[in-house]
Amino acid sequence: MTREQLFENILKKKSFLCVGLDTDIDKIPAHLLENNDPIFAFNKAIIDATAKYCVAYKPNSAFYEGMGIDGEYALDKTVEYLRLKYPEHFIILDAKRGDIGNTSDMYAKSAFKQMKVNAITVAPYMGEDSVKPFLAYQNKWVILLALTSNMGSQDFQMIADANGERLFEKVLKKSKEWGTTDQLMYVVGATQGSMFADIRKIVPDHFLLVPGVGAQGGSLAEVVKYGMNKQCGLLVNASRSIIYADNGLDFAFAAASEAKKIQEEMAIYLADLQR
Amino acid sequence: MTREQLFENILKKKSFLCVGLDTDIDKIPAHLLENNDPIFAFNKAIIDATAKYCVAYKPNSAFYEGMGIDGEYALDKTVEYLRLKYPEHFIILDAKRGDIGNTSDMYAKSAFKQMKVNAITVAPYMGEDSVKPFLAYQNKWVILLALTSNMGSQDFQMIADANGERLFEKVLKKSKEWGTTDQLMYVVGATQGSMFADIRKIVPDHFLLVPGVGAQGGSLAEVVKYGMNKQCGLLVNASRSIIYADNGLDFAFAAASEAKKIQEEMAIYLADLQR
Repeated sequence: MTREQLFENILKKKSFLCVGLDTDIDKIPAHLLENNDPIFAFNKAIIDATAKYCVAYKPNSAFYEGMGIDGEYALDKTVEYLRLKYPEHFIILDAKRGDIGNTSDMYAKSAFKQMKVNAITVAPYMGEDSVKPFLAYQNKWVILLALTSNMGSQDFQMIADANGERLFEKVLKKSKEWGTTDQLMYVVGATQGSMFADIRKIVPDHFLLVPGVGAQGGSLAEVVKYGMNKQCGLLVNASRSIIYADNGLDFAFAAASEAKKIQEEMAIYLADLQR
Repeated sequence: MTREQLFENILKKKSFLCVGLDTDIDKIPAHLLENNDPIFAFNKAIIDATAKYCVAYKPNSAFYEGMGIDGEYALDKTVEYLRLKYPEHFIILDAKRGDIGNTSDMYAKSAFKQMKVNAITVAPYMGEDSVKPFLAYQNKWVILLALTSNMGSQDFQMIADANGERLFEKVLKKSKEWGTTDQLMYVVGATQGSMFADIRKIVPDHFLLVPGVGAQGGSLAEVVKYGMNKQCGLLVNASRSIIYADNGLDFAFAAASEAKKIQEEMAIYLADLQR
């Protein structure tokens, strides 16, 4: 999917919501456990209920790996279901991979050739040759960690050099030379809303994937105020607040209702953008 | 496995070699492809041939993920084979994971509860709460990236703050407070041999996992000179130079012979250590 297509979808859906599929067998409604593949059954119901309110899905690889081979199967089936039934939705494998070149090659192959997702999240610590193999695929995206939403983001990402430049700023500056704005996005946590202004000075045109709205407490209004650009430039993710909105028979309805709430707020911001 | 047990194994085997299982279906001998599970067949043969020359194995998750579900099965079978047949060997899942707390929880569960490996490599970019969940398991190890063996290690790891302290040094200093020397090791690339002296100033007692000897060109003598401590403190990994030493019917014999060469050099260094 190209940046233009993504932007078109955002305008059409009046939404820049990404639904995070952090599916945990211990948290899904009990009645689904009778199913052959409860994880896929849960994901399918969540996807069908929320698809009209979002433009992207982000399965979180860890949750599927945590369930072993059964989890891997459920992940593959989920991605295939999305690709076939909802081809306009942007699929992000949240995996935070990154290794030496020949190994990143393999991670890229896994994401883009095996699973056929649109994008994968990548960690920058190992530098250029750990990221480049992911950028070798046409119409595929790398979403590089810049400033994350967790407490630990203070440990290294915020450390400044002699000129006051912080590590996440260095990551943005260096990495934006490695690919185009049609290949590269950045993870920027919503819990750090006021930092978006600093980030937009370095990467005015890139899309940003923004976790941390919802369960982690970030404010959508603040993210939009400082982070939105002319082509929206934002994919805002919510996981737990949507998919675990209710734990009973009506879980999918509750998820849709949570997604709709966010979408309606987003529609207002997008209307402002087009004025 | 505890640090004492690992050191005992090193003395007993006269080896601190780790064999990296970067198994690539496109590189294994052609005759294995007739097998039901060629990847496992290859790994089993390599393991049986090299076990007496090494103390650790390091399957590289990316290579198995790159082959989809079949690869995941082969990885699980390989780890299970190691655990049952070679319980004294230390098993490292090279996965370079790291995410917000609830997600790192899942990666830890996958490595330590599902696969039951001894150790996992972890990336430090997201800070303390991304690493801590891995440290919650008794007798399990986190091997944190400090200074890697690739070109891209120059991009961010070597950047200094106003006091001249480099990022990899900050990672060592901060993270050594997060766990004990019985839980934490560090990845330090052999291609940066002279840096080991600087690293030992910060972490004199920790074990270091050292990739980059062999195909990547690092010198074992230099690593030992600057990196060895009283309890050895080194696990030196070689992957491609051992497992792909030969591509024909004698591949396992060739792998054993390469591993033996390295082990014999290591025996000399260990004899010096005990004097």
